[in-house]
Amino acid sequence: MLAYVLEENGPILKEIARPEPLADEALIRVRLAGICATDLELIRGYMNFRGVLGHEFVGEVAGPEAHPLLGRRVVGEINCGCGNCPWCARGMERHCLKRSVLGILGRSGAFAEFTCLPSRNLHVLPDSVQDEAAVFCEPLAACFEVIEQFPEIVEREVLVIGDGRLGLLQTQVLYFHGARVSLLGRHPEKMALLAPLKIPTWSEPAQAVCSEGERWPVVVEATGSADGFALAVSKTKPRGVLVLKSTVASEARLNLSSVVVDEITVLGSRCGLFEPAIRALEAGEVRTFSMIHGSFALRDAPEAFDKAHEKGIIKVLIHI
Amino acid sequence: MLAYVLEENGPILKEIARPEPLADEALIRVRLAGICATDLELIRGYMNFRGVLGHEFVGEVAGPEAHPLLGRRVVGEINCGCGNCPWCARGMERHCLKRSVLGILGRSGAFAEFTCLPSRNLHVLPDSVQDEAAVFCEPLAACFEVIEQFPEIVEREVLVIGDGRLGLLQTQVLYFHGARVSLLGRHPEKMALLAPLKIPTWSEPAQAVCSEGERWPVVVEATGSADGFALAVSKTKPRGVLVLKSTVASEARLNLSSVVVDEITVLGSRCGLFEPAIRALEAGEVRTFSMIHGSFALRDAPEAFDKAHEKGIIKVLIHI
Repeated sequence: MLAYVLEENGPILKEIARPEPLADEALIRVRLAGICATDLELIRGYMNFRGVLGHEFVGEVAGPEAHPLLGRRVVGEINCGCGNCPWCARGMERHCLKRSVLGILGRSGAFAEFTCLPSRNLHVLPDSVQDEAAVFCEPLAACFEVIEQFPEIVEREVLVIGDGRLGLLQTQVLYFHGARVSLLGRHPEKMALLAPLKIPTWSEPAQAVCSEGERWPVVVEATGSADGFALAVSKTKPRGVLVLKSTVASEARLNLSSVVVDEITVLGSRCGLFEPAIRALEAGEVRTFSMIHGSFALRDAPEAFDKAHEKGIIKVLIHI
Repeated sequence: MLAYVLEENGPILKEIARPEPLADEALIRVRLAGICATDLELIRGYMNFRGVLGHEFVGEVAGPEAHPLLGRRVVGEINCGCGNCPWCARGMERHCLKRSVLGILGRSGAFAEFTCLPSRNLHVLPDSVQDEAAVFCEPLAACFEVIEQFPEIVEREVLVIGDGRLGLLQTQVLYFHGARVSLLGRHPEKMALLAPLKIPTWSEPAQAVCSEGERWPVVVEATGSADGFALAVSKTKPRGVLVLKSTVASEARLNLSSVVVDEITVLGSRCGLFEPAIRALEAGEVRTFSMIHGSFALRDAPEAFDKAHEKGIIKVLIHI
């Protein structure tokens, strides 16, 4: 089968063997997959990953033949736990110390004709959620994770920093949960997506003010860049909460003394559960279509990644 | 009066005018002061401070003549708020945006014959607390701050990292509040101070294990060095809490991706209230005497600082 594989010298399109599902796994025929900022980081060296890239996907269960979901359209949680540890027992495979992660850590991903995941990771999609929306399930789940970790956020004034895909989704998720949320970004054309919701947006950090002034009770850092942290700290008020969503491969020169002096709580936040994300897509709450800035066939994956690297691009999809 | 002053070219011993207390302030004759790691950081450029150094002290109220505490032996909280903002209204002058901080920010400090503080910052010392113990009030208060911010810490297994003055005090404060606390340091001779309390101590990071393994539910970073953060992250379990007490002047190359991937909560923590610290010293709970590794007259302040810079030194005092 055709696959887009990250090798020692970079990513390459090549024919590889179709994967064989293990006893507890399903074989999935991938229909549509999305390029994530994490994929770009993986190519730069993050996690030292080698294998098929891709972790945001929609597909159909294609095997084994007796699988109860055979032929059903599914999305899949990307963290695969050992099933035997205290994390897995609590439904938190995403923190299992022996986990593999689809297309990120020890497990081949979804930029391929077929991929495999444990059956328990799969969620059947409602018919009303189209592929082009469902492919946002994984990043959307990561936005719901913030609310799971920090439920009080929905009662606060929140500044999301970063107008990439994650920032735009995070802002909407917080908005629909009642937070008084605003977005600070660099691209008015991206932030225009939120105009119908009347969510305040700013392009200048100094102009992003809340009822308490220039520093906010809660800031969500979703810039995906190493500089984002210092900006986020400067916008968080003393004793405030800074939710950190960006992972960046490179070490940055950071000064943590403001975190200590202002007694800021930095809350690291990563993957979330799919269920609330699917429900939000089914309810039509989250605006995703206008984020799609390109759509390519798998055989054109290199061009798709070139496009994803371009300035101002939110989301590029790969049809399999 | 004689004072030890941080100037553009470094600290210098010199004669300066005796300070004049403002309307709401007391003039304090300093009896004893301690050199803190923060003083060493200030000399390296932290906070860009210029003026009389020193913020850990014991003194006597020496003026104005009608002052109700005249002649009384006192310690003083170092953060001086504006008195008019929401922070000050909540008794949290330490976060007032217009604050000055004794010997650290916009206010001359205590390595001098006299210093001034707002009268509301002063605490009269019980007779049973000797100067050599009382001079630890400020750093001890900073240790109680952790419990004020994060009360559940006393029910957890906690690893304190750093066997300097702050780490040794923090470990004891947590111990006396019931936490199952251990200390990871580099100097067995410093950690020996805790032997009578039977607190577990380690010199090798890999050996510092709790009931859940090598990574701990709660870690307190008190190394005072820029490398301490990465070690502390590596010892914190997923979804754990890392309390950050060190302020370091230099920016370090830090990678925050583990904080995100493991969803660690980083809790910045700084100064605390003096009342519980004084009570702990009065109860004789905290072992301070054996931390004192040198005692100098103010006229020998340069030698005192040389001593404080030496390896293996916990605390150097300056008699005024």
